[in-house]
Amino acid sequence: MNAVDTLATGYLVLELVGIFAFALSGAQLAVERDFDIVGMAVLAETTALGGGVLRDVLLGTTPAAFFQPAYLITPLIATGVVFVWHRQLERVARFVTLVDAAGVGLFCVVGTQKALLFGLPGLPAVILGATSAVGGGVLRDLLARRDPAVLRKDSQMYAIPALFGATIIAIGYWVHVTTPVLAVAAAAVAFALRMLALRYNWRAPHPRR
Amino acid sequence: MNAVDTLATGYLVLELVGIFAFALSGAQLAVERDFDIVGMAVLAETTALGGGVLRDVLLGTTPAAFFQPAYLITPLIATGVVFVWHRQLERVARFVTLVDAAGVGLFCVVGTQKALLFGLPGLPAVILGATSAVGGGVLRDLLARRDPAVLRKDSQMYAIPALFGATIIAIGYWVHVTTPVLAVAAAAVAFALRMLALRYNWRAPHPRR
Amino acid sequence: MNAVDTLATGYLVLELVGIFAFALSGAQLAVERDFDIVGMAVLAETTALGGGVLRDVLLGTTPAAFFQPAYLITPLIATGVVFVWHRQLERVARFVTLVDAAGVGLFCVVGTQKALLFGLPGLPAVILGATSAVGGGVLRDLLARRDPAVLRKDSQMYAIPALFGATIIAIGYWVHVTTPVLAVAAAAVAFALRMLALRYNWRAPHPRR
Repeated sequence: MNAVDTLATGYLVLELVGIFAFALSGAQLAVERDFDIVGMAVLAETTALGGGVLRDVLLGTTPAAFFQPAYLITPLIATGVVFVWHRQLERVARFVTLVDAAGVGLFCVVGTQKALLFGLPGLPAVILGATSAVGGGVLRDLLARRDPAVLRKDSQMYAIPALFGATIIAIGYWVHVTTPVLAVAAAAVAFALRMLALRYNWRAPHPRR
Repeated sequence: MNAVDTLATGYLVLELVGIFAFALSGAQLAVERDFDIVGMAVLAETTALGGGVLRDVLLGTTPAAFFQPAYLITPLIATGVVFVWHRQLERVARFVTLVDAAGVGLFCVVGTQKALLFGLPGLPAVILGATSAVGGGVLRDLLARRDPAVLRKDSQMYAIPALFGATIIAIGYWVHVTTPVLAVAAAAVAFALRMLALRYNWRAPHPRR
Repeated sequence: MNAVDTLATGYLVLELVGIFAFALSGAQLAVERDFDIVGMAVLAETTALGGGVLRDVLLGTTPAAFFQPAYLITPLIATGVVFVWHRQLERVARFVTLVDAAGVGLFCVVGTQKALLFGLPGLPAVILGATSAVGGGVLRDLLARRDPAVLRKDSQMYAIPALFGATIIAIGYWVHVTTPVLAVAAAAVAFALRMLALRYNWRAPHPRR
């Protein structure tokens, strides 16, 4: 395997780990809501892939998830894991949160890059990038009928780290900096912001009533 | 009328009967939820055509429903029927369930075939095929704000028959069997599974809490 | 600036005023639901642009909102206005309703015209036109988890004026009348119907239970 293949494989593995973490949160919510295994699989797939599918539909391209079987199979594995071990998973909740935050970092970067590649201006590219990262969670919450986490006052800024990461990529693109180093930095910033927001219970501003 | 035309007409009639049954369930839910006639028409159209529209949007093609007026008019007729006779319809509930199950059988087959025709691999084609059959019901439940039937533990396996029918088509395609006989068989299997699940109150597995 | 440019600018200003009014209703609902500023911005963008985005996705074209920065920025300004002055805005509620009704009139006309331009037959063009006008509100209500206003018995016919305006455009197109005068007339009819429905508390028919 040459260097490029190694990079591509490493990248796919990263994506699948993020997809797995997202899918766990979907399947776990299905257990909480007392859904059956079909409901678990639907919520797992939707949470894991919904953001990217939404981005691709808005870009007018067939969802990438359809052409890489691993994308569709990973949430099914997560469904099986949650089905069998959902009680034990609570013990590793902190670890799952960590991987979930890494997923947010990765997907906001990838989503923004794809939107820019499709010729979108900066602002919509940032919005689509953040949608890639948090859109699956919104669809999950809609299907499970609870307030979308991303809208709530107690959401510890779920969307803001993704918007930051996406904005870094868009600014880089604007000044013709598109190195992988910037992508890694942007993902790291989004990841760190998300972890700090969780750790210190940061909240986004909300209007006084 | 020659044989091909007769087949095509028979096929369209079948589709419209399935669409009519789906639309009835949408309009009836609107009555239960105390919506007005616009709400009834919106739920009827969404239930009847939403699955196919979702499939076509995900395939990146203009929804087929837009180019066959009968597809859009049939749910309006169902709305009128429910508006006038919604109390009497309860007496034929069993018959409507039968036609609804036939619709699930038909649409999971048609949806999978279309996805394969668009070059999708087997697994996403199966998912899109099942989405064609049950996606309209999910959208209906979202608009009417109740738990999507397809996710619920007491759903008597609404999605599983559709997944079975879709899988038969995908396997057939894989081994180069695409005869109409297989399509009819797959639709019949989905229909029979759905009716058996209803009759014997079959449930999909669900996690122990 | 020549006459054509003046017209185009006037038209864009009209659209932005409509978008602003729609966005206000989204941001205000977010305040009622106790969301944070991200939730306000998401609801503002969704309410203002969701109908047009839905229309464009169904037409298979990249949403127009992505290529005109003013479309995306206007809801952010509305979010800021609501964030600071949400209590004072109640005093101008009547004025906001007026602008909102004007938005419904404008967007049902623009949406129908675009759908006809894309080669859709009359009935789906009318449906997409009405969707442009009221679809954003449906998405807003879904995200905020309340019954979509457009379905409710007490909705004072939110969708019907839009359907009327859209139908006028479609009939005009059918008889080859596509003058701007007809567009203005259709928008005015939708606007007037909406205002009359609000003033006299008109309701659409609903089934007897």
